[in-house]
Amino acid sequence: MQTVTFDSAHIHPFVSPDEFTAVRQEAFTAQQSLFRATCRGNDFLGWLDLPLQADFAGIRQAAEELRACARYLVVIGIGGSYLGARAVIEALSSSFRHPDGEGMQVLFAGHHIGEDYYAELLDFLADKSFALCVISKSGTTTEPAIAFRLLKAYLEQQVGRDEARRRIVAVTDAARGALHDLAQQEGYRTFAIPDNVGGRFSLLTPVGLLPIAAAGFDAEALLAGAAAMRSLCTDCPDNPALRYAAARTALYRKGYSVEILANFHTKLHYVTEWWKQLFGESEGKEHRGIFPAGADFTTDLHSMGQYIQQGPRTLMETVISVSSPCRRMAIPHDPGNLDRLNFLAGMRVDEVNKMAELGTRIAHIDGGVPNMAFRLPELNAHTLGQLFYLFELACGISGCMLGVNPFDQPGVEDYKNNMFALLGKPGYEQASRDIKIKLENSGTL
Amino acid sequence: MQTVTFDSAHIHPFVSPDEFTAVRQEAFTAQQSLFRATCRGNDFLGWLDLPLQADFAGIRQAAEELRACARYLVVIGIGGSYLGARAVIEALSSSFRHPDGEGMQVLFAGHHIGEDYYAELLDFLADKSFALCVISKSGTTTEPAIAFRLLKAYLEQQVGRDEARRRIVAVTDAARGALHDLAQQEGYRTFAIPDNVGGRFSLLTPVGLLPIAAAGFDAEALLAGAAAMRSLCTDCPDNPALRYAAARTALYRKGYSVEILANFHTKLHYVTEWWKQLFGESEGKEHRGIFPAGADFTTDLHSMGQYIQQGPRTLMETVISVSSPCRRMAIPHDPGNLDRLNFLAGMRVDEVNKMAELGTRIAHIDGGVPNMAFRLPELNAHTLGQLFYLFELACGISGCMLGVNPFDQPGVEDYKNNMFALLGKPGYEQASRDIKIKLENSGTL
Repeated sequence: MQTVTFDSAHIHPFVSPDEFTAVRQEAFTAQQSLFRATCRGNDFLGWLDLPLQADFAGIRQAAEELRACARYLVVIGIGGSYLGARAVIEALSSSFRHPDGEGMQVLFAGHHIGEDYYAELLDFLADKSFALCVISKSGTTTEPAIAFRLLKAYLEQQVGRDEARRRIVAVTDAARGALHDLAQQEGYRTFAIPDNVGGRFSLLTPVGLLPIAAAGFDAEALLAGAAAMRSLCTDCPDNPALRYAAARTALYRKGYSVEILANFHTKLHYVTEWWKQLFGESEGKEHRGIFPAGADFTTDLHSMGQYIQQGPRTLMETVISVSSPCRRMAIPHDPGNLDRLNFLAGMRVDEVNKMAELGTRIAHIDGGVPNMAFRLPELNAHTLGQLFYLFELACGISGCMLGVNPFDQPGVEDYKNNMFALLGKPGYEQASRDIKIKLENSGTL
Repeated sequence: MQTVTFDSAHIHPFVSPDEFTAVRQEAFTAQQSLFRATCRGNDFLGWLDLPLQADFAGIRQAAEELRACARYLVVIGIGGSYLGARAVIEALSSSFRHPDGEGMQVLFAGHHIGEDYYAELLDFLADKSFALCVISKSGTTTEPAIAFRLLKAYLEQQVGRDEARRRIVAVTDAARGALHDLAQQEGYRTFAIPDNVGGRFSLLTPVGLLPIAAAGFDAEALLAGAAAMRSLCTDCPDNPALRYAAARTALYRKGYSVEILANFHTKLHYVTEWWKQLFGESEGKEHRGIFPAGADFTTDLHSMGQYIQQGPRTLMETVISVSSPCRRMAIPHDPGNLDRLNFLAGMRVDEVNKMAELGTRIAHIDGGVPNMAFRLPELNAHTLGQLFYLFELACGISGCMLGVNPFDQPGVEDYKNNMFALLGKPGYEQASRDIKIKLENSGTL
């Protein structure tokens, strides 16, 4: 098997080997508390065993039917109902969409409240065949609910209500909620989000698997990769998830308060976005937690590189790279050599990228930035499955070590409650009055 | 005139009004030191007067000729030779590319070393007419130099060397350097990057203006907007650039070490990326500087929202929003109302977005996150020009107050030097030997 590797050697000398050994012991205890369900938040541990699920036939069939009935699939979701699928699809897609290409193209909606975006999306879809995959546990989250209202009406207008029903799949609660009820009433095909899996840990449920399969990618290999990483990690004190959790925790305790996840492959941008939610939402509570930031290298070496090299020494850096590109392209020889690049002629582009990576790691370590590094042998569904499971387990361990409940997100409600009060949502009458008084006293808000 | 506004009222109570008054005095002195060229780095102040330039005819003509000869323009550049043009083009483009749409489509290259990306880019361009705009002061920066070698050879192969010469425009040093020399030799049309303007301040030179004009956007309005903001700010102690610089500096001195620039419009993502380079590269030195991070709201309220609401209280937040969308879309009524959204029926989508923004600002301030806010009346070239100039001036003032030279970037060379040593670049022989010894002693790197 091609295995994702993790290198923690370069957290030293910022953390001493003895300190690291002690923190790894703690991490082992934390990992056991997850698998034995004795940790905080232990009613949300379903994600630990998702790779062991065998029930993929329904997803495969739904994906095939979606692909047969439309050219575009609009996936409607936000947060954990958005980022995982997007991360995998962007990682495995071409950088350039061929408008006349084969297969199903995935578009995203419901991940913001952009009026211009929706007007432009409907324009784009006007002369195209499309289907909808709406993902929401409750069905009342504002962003996807607005998007689904707009797109459902547009689809029904385009193809009629009966055909629209066949083109809509809902991923939602198994037993209750607005979307569940609507799907029952309309007869949509539905898939269940398990009760014991939180949004940011739901990639390996239909939330991620269905859009990925519909996009034509190997969601079963993704599951198999996750299962392989689960085997590697189960109760083993020297697994990469545990070492990553221990390394970043040891650094955090030394005052390194910002972690930059820096990829060296252009298709990993959304893996970083997914990682930011996973760790930020799990750890950022009770005034604690590492601030998760992302960087795409070498692009951002020309924007954030100066700060990383010479700014405040509160940064740790975690690199993700891919050993072998999918494609082959060598740098041509040029007789004139005015750009002085002939010393690279005949070399593959990625060989230069690899020396940029190595040069960067050395420079940043020398500059006082502790370094960790993940390496994927290739960029495919199996290695991504490994990486996602590794990150989820590392996040669970990190959160337990931090002493918070890594599986809740109480702070996310605050802006929503204010928004509902401001919009006069039924049931928010008192909050509405309160916030209006607050605004009158606040000056410019 | 529609003017970009700035609200600093909600840095209080985190900073007291008296403290803020004192810091504004400092900021006024810093601004004067910029306009009087008595600050550190005063040989790189050309950007202050760029909006006053009148010489746009050459750019207009070159843009028209590029649009006449090809459907795609590949803009080759990195860092300051990339982010400004991309920020404006993405802000003003449709969210969805119509493959058969009118006008010139801009693609980007030279902003990383991605082998898969270049293979896919050449595949995409195989049956399309394209031109090149290569942007590099020296012509030897690795990323754009590799991209230009690949794309120049491909274009020459596709249309012949003579036609390729007509389709290539170089933006480079006026008098020397590899790209200057090559452009002279081949007879490319060239535009000069002024000597006294650093990369991250070069948006209003041909570096930004030419790609923006070629994409069909109003680069003259961008300049006019910047000129308007310059007038507003010149030596005035209560201008928005000065107030923004003073507010963030006062907060930094209180221990707020991370600034999140959070936009509430989907097209502003790359404005944030540009801002991250501007501030991060200007301030992040001598172990000082605010860490610049970006967020796209409401999307990232469902990923980073928890951390912002309840994580360590070291964050300040700066919001950018747009008063009026370009398009109109109302939320439809639904007789069933299973999603319980009928309380929003008839409302414009953006009205909900605005209440999300207000609700978020209140929630974050209540949670202990000082808030600043920019508001663009509309999203167009003129308001963007105002915003970019405002940010540049605020960055110069902030850097002066921080006590660093805001106009150099010495740390960016470190990874490049290591990379050249590792690749065996001529002239790096001793460094090559040194880094190999270092690697032998380093273990796993």
